Amino acid sequence: MNTLWSQRFAQRTQRMHGSAVRELLKLTAHPEVISFAGGLPASELFPVKEFEAATARVLSEHGPQALQYGVTEGWPKLREMIARHMARYGILVNAENILITSGSQQALDLIGKVFVNPGDRILVEKPTYLGALQAWSAYQAEFIGVPIDQNGMLPYPLESALRAGPKFIYALPNFQNPTGATLNMERRTELVRLADRNGVPLIEDDPYGQLRYEGAHLPPLVSIDAGRRNGKLYSGNVIYLSTFSKTLAPGLRLAWVVAPVEVIERLAQAKQGSDLHTSTFVQMVAYEVARGGFLDRHVRHIRAVYRQRRDAMLDTLGRHFPAGIRWTKPHGGLFLWATLPPGIDASDVLKAALEQKVAFVPGASFYSDGSGTGTMRLNYSNSTPERIEEGIRRLGSVLRVILKPSRQSGRQLPISA
Amino acid sequence: MNTLWSQRFAQRTQRMHGSAVRELLKLTAHPEVISFAGGLPASELFPVKEFEAATARVLSEHGPQALQYGVTEGWPKLREMIARHMARYGILVNAENILITSGSQQALDLIGKVFVNPGDRILVEKPTYLGALQAWSAYQAEFIGVPIDQNGMLPYPLESALRAGPKFIYALPNFQNPTGATLNMERRTELVRLADRNGVPLIEDDPYGQLRYEGAHLPPLVSIDAGRRNGKLYSGNVIYLSTFSKTLAPGLRLAWVVAPVEVIERLAQAKQGSDLHTSTFVQMVAYEVARGGFLDRHVRHIRAVYRQRRDAMLDTLGRHFPAGIRWTKPHGGLFLWATLPPGIDASDVLKAALEQKVAFVPGASFYSDGSGTGTMRLNYSNSTPERIEEGIRRLGSVLRVILKPSRQSGRQLPISA
Repeated sequence: MNTLWSQRFAQRTQRMHGSAVRELLKLTAHPEVISFAGGLPASELFPVKEFEAATARVLSEHGPQALQYGVTEGWPKLREMIARHMARYGILVNAENILITSGSQQALDLIGKVFVNPGDRILVEKPTYLGALQAWSAYQAEFIGVPIDQNGMLPYPLESALRAGPKFIYALPNFQNPTGATLNMERRTELVRLADRNGVPLIEDDPYGQLRYEGAHLPPLVSIDAGRRNGKLYSGNVIYLSTFSKTLAPGLRLAWVVAPVEVIERLAQAKQGSDLHTSTFVQMVAYEVARGGFLDRHVRHIRAVYRQRRDAMLDTLGRHFPAGIRWTKPHGGLFLWATLPPGIDASDVLKAALEQKVAFVPGASFYSDGSGTGTMRLNYSNSTPERIEEGIRRLGSVLRVILKPSRQSGRQLPISA
Repeated sequence: MNTLWSQRFAQRTQRMHGSAVRELLKLTAHPEVISFAGGLPASELFPVKEFEAATARVLSEHGPQALQYGVTEGWPKLREMIARHMARYGILVNAENILITSGSQQALDLIGKVFVNPGDRILVEKPTYLGALQAWSAYQAEFIGVPIDQNGMLPYPLESALRAGPKFIYALPNFQNPTGATLNMERRTELVRLADRNGVPLIEDDPYGQLRYEGAHLPPLVSIDAGRRNGKLYSGNVIYLSTFSKTLAPGLRLAWVVAPVEVIERLAQAKQGSDLHTSTFVQMVAYEVARGGFLDRHVRHIRAVYRQRRDAMLDTLGRHFPAGIRWTKPHGGLFLWATLPPGIDASDVLKAALEQKVAFVPGASFYSDGSGTGTMRLNYSNSTPERIEEGIRRLGSVLRVILKPSRQSGRQLPISA
């Protein structure tokens, strides 16, 4: 780095997490690579025709408004639509409880800006969403990781971690990124109770909740918390995040926060300093596409396609992966999670896999403490069943070589020389 | 505020600036108010037809790509277009020197995130852009204000302020918000030289540079700095910001940073944690509207209209404002700046003005130290000459009452009672 600039960067930015996701997104750009790496929705499912019609209508009917500055909190009609939508999931709120953000990543950043002081501890699932670790590392947070199983955070480590005095708890209850795990009902109730009893706010990140492929919908933490308070309108202990990125299109960068009004006001104040407001044009177009029941029909379609892809991956994993590797069976979302036998490093697997033109994310990226080297995140939403079959076959071959190095090198010795 | 939440907000957010601009933007929503308050471009000039054609083409030809996640640095074709555009203003850079941001406000925020540690001092013009004060207050910056006149920062106070060891200098050289002042050529050269000699980076914010209504274009600080280094490609001491908000449409939230590659990399890392990337859809639509020379033709049209509005405001000020008030005569941009006689508080004027359905921004908002109570910012871009005439007439009446309180109260006494 140029010394002119290197000495000028604040020391604390040295602490920001590396650019693993960004670098990995670049891998997915090569069409010959079968990538299970990104967290990308299937772009062939984007409702392009509906976007064409919606954009034409927004511009012809409200062009000057759509292209002008707007208020920081978000376009009122979109906030009202989201409040009505939330009510269907048992979250009874008004538009004033909604803040529109430029993707959920911005919501995480704003939460960091408002809540996190240097050295504050944040209780996270272990592993957890890399983007949250990145967002809060910029504010010099420390992380306390609570191990999870297929049913979410383990109760005893959770109670123990709460004694360390975290500033807040960050949880992804549905089909968690990266593991696909879902917090079960008993643990949801207990998590909400413990958070409230300890006076520790809960951040509930729910990008995938509508993408359930089997089993019954479980109530979000925010509505369990509201139920404990007998509050019809929301005034509780949970900040809930969701997004249009997985149901409509991530290229919009459009998401929302549900929270008590005083929290929304503080986040809006922080947002004003961060980007003034989210694109008016994008907000009006998304509203126009989503309204009139289209979004519900579209989500049903996405669910059917992704379920098929999840099933294809589970099926091919069973056929192509060697013994000794375990993986999750998510009930929804975009990811599953594989655990390698002891002593195998997933970043070595990735290097070998890229030579065979197949990619995934080594799981260590999702740990705040450098552990998880023997784990892999596999995305199934952005590949057809045929590509999944071929990609998992390639990955299986790579893993067989790595898991049986001595036998494999034996094979490569010439038989007679 | 609910005590459940109030105790949880980080102490430092108490230091964030109030929501003056946000509250004032709300005033502009009432159609009966003639508002010189906001900084809004004229929405009747937005090229809605061109946006309709561009959006239809982007979606029909590249729909899935436009709606998908993109890379943090920005859509490559837009970065290349901006690099070519910059070359015309003597800023010789490659696409890798460009970072696309969600409005210039985000660029200010990212600069704060990367550079500012608590207690760092930032050298600013006095007065300066409120959004910059807000962005950097969130990172607990302190401000050193250097007084300006119609030709920008005063040389002697600048040298003195540099001795206080600022982290960087923030300057708006062209038609500054809020005063309309333009840094003259001699002071540009000297500012660049002093910044370099003291090892203090310069942040050059240039949202209005293309909106010049008279006089010759002056070279940006970034190209003066590059000239001192004989560098063909950019590797200097200046970070340059510009935006599509004033030339195309602010509702897009689309702007860019020009900087040495190592600075772009650090800002991109911070941006990844802040919002992953700026809307792909918006970037592709803006590119499609701007390309092929349209943006240049459109800017010529905007210039002609705004020049007429500036002239209308200068003319009506001369006719309707009472003696004792001074104002600037900006050579471009959206604002002029009025100074009241000693002892008059512009916030009292605003209260009286709102009763007469005319609005402006009291200038104190643009000072980091609470001074400037006798100043007013007047926006002329978002009102027709007829509305400007009527609004300045109303404001003139209000000011005549306030400037002659004794005679005026005498008048209001009943003549016989």
